[in-house]
Amino acid sequence: MKLIRYGQPGHEKPGILLHNQPYDVSAFGEDYNEAFFANGGLQRLAKFVQSHEGRLTPLADGERLGPPVARPSKILCIGLNYADHAKETGATPPPEPVLFMKSTTSYIGPHDDIIIPKNSVKTDWEVELAVVIGKRASYIEEADAADYIAGYALHNDVSEREFQLERSGTWDKGKGCDTFAPVGPFLATPDEVGDVDNLRLWLSVNGKMMQDGTTANLIFKIPFLISYLSQFMTLLPGDIISTGTPAGVGLGFNPPVYLKPGDVVELGIDGLGTARQQVKAYGRN
Amino acid sequence: MKLIRYGQPGHEKPGILLHNQPYDVSAFGEDYNEAFFANGGLQRLAKFVQSHEGRLTPLADGERLGPPVARPSKILCIGLNYADHAKETGATPPPEPVLFMKSTTSYIGPHDDIIIPKNSVKTDWEVELAVVIGKRASYIEEADAADYIAGYALHNDVSEREFQLERSGTWDKGKGCDTFAPVGPFLATPDEVGDVDNLRLWLSVNGKMMQDGTTANLIFKIPFLISYLSQFMTLLPGDIISTGTPAGVGLGFNPPVYLKPGDVVELGIDGLGTARQQVKAYGRN
Repeated sequence: MKLIRYGQPGHEKPGILLHNQPYDVSAFGEDYNEAFFANGGLQRLAKFVQSHEGRLTPLADGERLGPPVARPSKILCIGLNYADHAKETGATPPPEPVLFMKSTTSYIGPHDDIIIPKNSVKTDWEVELAVVIGKRASYIEEADAADYIAGYALHNDVSEREFQLERSGTWDKGKGCDTFAPVGPFLATPDEVGDVDNLRLWLSVNGKMMQDGTTANLIFKIPFLISYLSQFMTLLPGDIISTGTPAGVGLGFNPPVYLKPGDVVELGIDGLGTARQQVKAYGRN
Repeated sequence: MKLIRYGQPGHEKPGILLHNQPYDVSAFGEDYNEAFFANGGLQRLAKFVQSHEGRLTPLADGERLGPPVARPSKILCIGLNYADHAKETGATPPPEPVLFMKSTTSYIGPHDDIIIPKNSVKTDWEVELAVVIGKRASYIEEADAADYIAGYALHNDVSEREFQLERSGTWDKGKGCDTFAPVGPFLATPDEVGDVDNLRLWLSVNGKMMQDGTTANLIFKIPFLISYLSQFMTLLPGDIISTGTPAGVGLGFNPPVYLKPGDVVELGIDGLGTARQQVKAYGRN
């Protein structure tokens, strides 16, 4: 299945893609949130869709898409998980996964605007494969990790490099700014994705290709990451793990290149759709 | 007012302290969550309590206390915010606040057990003054910060030093383990607290005083912190900001001293009550 959420920010309704056409499933009566995933929502939704096929209402053109999962309890991100990206930032690939967190107030829809924060000078892009957790996970084994995956989605891990690296403290300051986590267009269940270790992922700015990588180059693979993170904290249904970005971020250019108002960022991952974000300055519409 | 939540984990009901006696206010019909604070809940609760005074049901003895605010969207923490603590860890006081985040899955009641994670070797304590946000805050001025404070609470920012400092990446890995954020016993509204810049805070392990400081020594004061953080991300009603710990953590001893199963941690802040946590090993009851 491919799950979407549509409508105004904070008031999204559930929907679904069938043959790439978006349909409303608000009659299903549940948002795609922690309780939904925890209580077998994906299986129940599949039955609902099957029993209503042919009678679902298509979405009107131009509906805004929200992120495909309700605000999660946490967004965990893995840093430096592609060797080419670690190299371009001047970092050595780490001996074990680098974890940081994004504030969930950064969480927006796939085609919403990226707002450059006030006083930002280095707002950057990062196309990433995000994993959505389907089941409470604590101290799980790598071999069992697949049971804990609800699905996958496209994520732009927008990052303010000065806030992240030059303003004291951990990376969180430059990772969780409002609008810095566009997710979607849809959540794809694993059966829709094929080999998740061999997906092309790319990102362009104003039509110029900046990142063009493959998940085949992930240093730490998804089952390992889920098992690893579950040693440090319980993962809840609906939680998001973003798995890192390949080379081609603005920080990696010489001189670096950062986003400016008016820029258009487009990104995509094989089987997970594409997203398009306009860049705006804070306070300007 | 002094707000409490009681009952089983995940099923807490709202309560209140009156003359230091706990009463049930579940008839008020709302949990102390984001919507409660956003919709004038504190004022409405005060009216409810006033109109029901003398007719409220006292809590039965031995009721478990949960954290006094429902699971927040985020727990933001300030590192190295007391000069004596920065010195004991070998760090220089930072030029601006150090931010890190705790996973909200670490969030527990004030007297719940602290569980030492599997494979932990350096589980440590940190008594802290926590601020609870009362109103959505984005780019606010320091002079206006008081308007955004719902109240204050006692927090033990439990930390696994090896996970935090020696396992690659940011501090988040050692800060967000399950049970690492006992908060409470209650949320005190600002009128209950007096001068928040002059509160004694202390923590003992097995009866031995380990930390004994005062919020007078905070490097960055609370209004500044709220304004500062609101430049990087929107703060939501119910969000928690923990303001840092004074000297006396286990890491600061020579040699360092860490928590072990069977230890009892007690802590308190003037006007914010005391908490008591038993330390247990993961998987042992």
